[in-house]
Amino acid sequence: MPEFLTLLPPQESLDKLLRNLPEPQPATETIHTVSATGRVIATDLLAPHPLPEFPRSTVDGYAVKAADTYGASDSLPAYLKLIGECPMGKAPTLEVNAAETAIIHTGGMLPKGADAVVMLEYTQQTVEDEMEILRAVADGENVIRIGEDVAEGDLIKPKGSAIRPAEVGGLMSLGFTMVEVAKRPIVGIISSGDEVVHPSGTPKPGQVRDINSYTLSSLVEKTGAEAIRYGVIADEMDSIQAAIGRALARCDMVLITAGSSASSRDMTAAAIDSLGEPGVLVHGVNTRPGKPTILGVCDGKAVIGLPGNPVSALVNGYVFVVPLVRRLLGQSVAMVQPSVRAKLTVNIPSQAGREDWIPIRLIAPSPIPFPDERGRGAMSPLPSWERDRLERSESQGEGLYLAEPIFGKSNLIFTMVGADGLLKIAPDATGLSAGEMVEVILI
Amino acid sequence: MPEFLTLLPPQESLDKLLRNLPEPQPATETIHTVSATGRVIATDLLAPHPLPEFPRSTVDGYAVKAADTYGASDSLPAYLKLIGECPMGKAPTLEVNAAETAIIHTGGMLPKGADAVVMLEYTQQTVEDEMEILRAVADGENVIRIGEDVAEGDLIKPKGSAIRPAEVGGLMSLGFTMVEVAKRPIVGIISSGDEVVHPSGTPKPGQVRDINSYTLSSLVEKTGAEAIRYGVIADEMDSIQAAIGRALARCDMVLITAGSSASSRDMTAAAIDSLGEPGVLVHGVNTRPGKPTILGVCDGKAVIGLPGNPVSALVNGYVFVVPLVRRLLGQSVAMVQPSVRAKLTVNIPSQAGREDWIPIRLIAPSPIPFPDERGRGAMSPLPSWERDRLERSESQGEGLYLAEPIFGKSNLIFTMVGADGLLKIAPDATGLSAGEMVEVILI
Repeated sequence: MPEFLTLLPPQESLDKLLRNLPEPQPATETIHTVSATGRVIATDLLAPHPLPEFPRSTVDGYAVKAADTYGASDSLPAYLKLIGECPMGKAPTLEVNAAETAIIHTGGMLPKGADAVVMLEYTQQTVEDEMEILRAVADGENVIRIGEDVAEGDLIKPKGSAIRPAEVGGLMSLGFTMVEVAKRPIVGIISSGDEVVHPSGTPKPGQVRDINSYTLSSLVEKTGAEAIRYGVIADEMDSIQAAIGRALARCDMVLITAGSSASSRDMTAAAIDSLGEPGVLVHGVNTRPGKPTILGVCDGKAVIGLPGNPVSALVNGYVFVVPLVRRLLGQSVAMVQPSVRAKLTVNIPSQAGREDWIPIRLIAPSPIPFPDERGRGAMSPLPSWERDRLERSESQGEGLYLAEPIFGKSNLIFTMVGADGLLKIAPDATGLSAGEMVEVILI
Repeated sequence: MPEFLTLLPPQESLDKLLRNLPEPQPATETIHTVSATGRVIATDLLAPHPLPEFPRSTVDGYAVKAADTYGASDSLPAYLKLIGECPMGKAPTLEVNAAETAIIHTGGMLPKGADAVVMLEYTQQTVEDEMEILRAVADGENVIRIGEDVAEGDLIKPKGSAIRPAEVGGLMSLGFTMVEVAKRPIVGIISSGDEVVHPSGTPKPGQVRDINSYTLSSLVEKTGAEAIRYGVIADEMDSIQAAIGRALARCDMVLITAGSSASSRDMTAAAIDSLGEPGVLVHGVNTRPGKPTILGVCDGKAVIGLPGNPVSALVNGYVFVVPLVRRLLGQSVAMVQPSVRAKLTVNIPSQAGREDWIPIRLIAPSPIPFPDERGRGAMSPLPSWERDRLERSESQGEGLYLAEPIFGKSNLIFTMVGADGLLKIAPDATGLSAGEMVEVILI
């Protein structure tokens, strides 16, 4: 097996690839902010004006000069002259002078002269134009200052940030109804294998349907790219070379799942080497599944040869392809990984020096029956075990999920269909023990 | 404040709402599996045939009768007659009889008569039509049996499951190029408030741009629903009633962010009561932010009155609206929450009996410098701290992120823009301590 003489660790492999790629310069497009959820901000966004633009009350109550309330209490109220009501959605025309007050509503603009608001419940009206103030307030109390949410010129979100519901709202609050985002990079996906056929037909004996084109296109689309599938090609040097070449001409990155045999992988490597500089950088990664992974660069574009086994291809999609797509989008490769903490159910052995990725099913153990839930089964609207998990995990400092490994050959796609996440066993570990708390990366 | 005499805990509030909703019957549509990522499977899917449909080799090597290899070793090989090669993508026409073998490639169909495969590296060719077998194999070794991935009739994924990359591949492997999914439920969203204006204009003094319509529509769309925004309505009983009524006629669920004042919330409650049975179920929830939340049902449809403060509205969107959208999609309300374990940087006090939700910024502390990374800043392609975190967390059993609370008034949307997640402080806790490990729910 000369091809695998030097297996690099996955992280080192990815680093080597990244060092050989140019700094990404994502193309951008300007789209409606309302449709931008999940997209990536392409330019540093600065606040064009402060928010709020005027001092606002945070409560229902009475606008005052704080100094007028000093010492006020239930037994010794301050008496202020009621001069009117601040309207909502307009600048108040009235002005609060010493010993005066005005009705104000939550969100209303503070009138001139006032610097604080006394909550409704700490006031009392005795005569028509006079309020008893029963509690002292400090200057600025119950008021949002101009620019307290964001100041003019503040960086409200750096480029490379993903747009979530909060960002959509934040952009709208400053009048950004359009936003410049990174264009979706295009990822070309090629399947090879003489036994692989399009999923729509009925495979003949010896044939199997294409899986990898679809798991990978789903994965890159989920990560924010556009996938172009180049179909299934024959395990021949000419077809492989032609397909990668065609994909490189149009795409920002190319994935090819090699045919399953060693010779087919060698052809993939040779094709990558023939199509641009520097060609193959990593041929063989010290990981399971995924040893035959090939990482290359052809004239500035990443070309990844993934193993033909569906589980290997998908797992290494998460390991190598997702960070590369993020990078093309201008995002940090090092993003927070959504994960769930869980207790391992069994021992998992692992070979030292090799990184293992194990499909994991998460199990919520011993759900505590909830009075209204009995007999309603999995579709019950009452999430008792979820509630239970959250509450216990907070009080006891640990999650309640069980992590059950799904062992199976790396050709069995349904090991991944049944999995909630992946567990990484680091190269320096020789395994994990039953009962250990582990972090399961959600897929 | 008579409206808040009985504050229910959030979970109890949600349960009360769920008990008053009919069992969801999501409408379905049949779509292309390639475009189905993120959608929800609407019917239990059974395997129409086993996978694989024929026994396949998992290695490059030689198909044999296992019994012929018993006792074989380097010093005492078994000698088998080489009768040919199994083609890829076709049923082999040859048959392996006793003392015979045939070349087979990874993924190839096992020929008749053979029951195991010897790996290439444990074989040696001495004369043209004879192979030396240097290692014994057991019956079935290096072979995937018929149905080993999935058996005919197996439930491959229950209805209510989300379609991820693995499911797309699994469906394709069985020829499901189309899949029946739950239609996106329609969520109507109404903003009210006399001070709130559309984001496209320039607000006059006293006015603010609408935020809640957009954070909430982004959130429900992200969760899998379609949002219809009914714009900003005046804080008047007639407008509120008319808007909710119009939304109920078309939508599966209605959200209204009440104007900020107490009287406006009371109008929302009265409007819900007037529009269907049983009307308001919960008026006031023991949570912060979000106390003024109103949960109601009008003739089988949930109507949620969320507080007008943008942070309250969004946080309670995560708490109440996301589970309800999932339920409309036929998903379990109790789903795995993507979260990250982190160490709290400061003490957070909390009032016993009240559930608190705190926006959290995640910080990766003391990144270990990596040789190639120096001076490359945040956009560095080398995820050293992420790698570091993952490796340390696995060996030490704890995450490395720091969780830094973002304290701020619940009107300040940029506290959410700056947050990576939310931390829940359970009602029975009186706070959390600096240094505690907490679970931060990613938003």
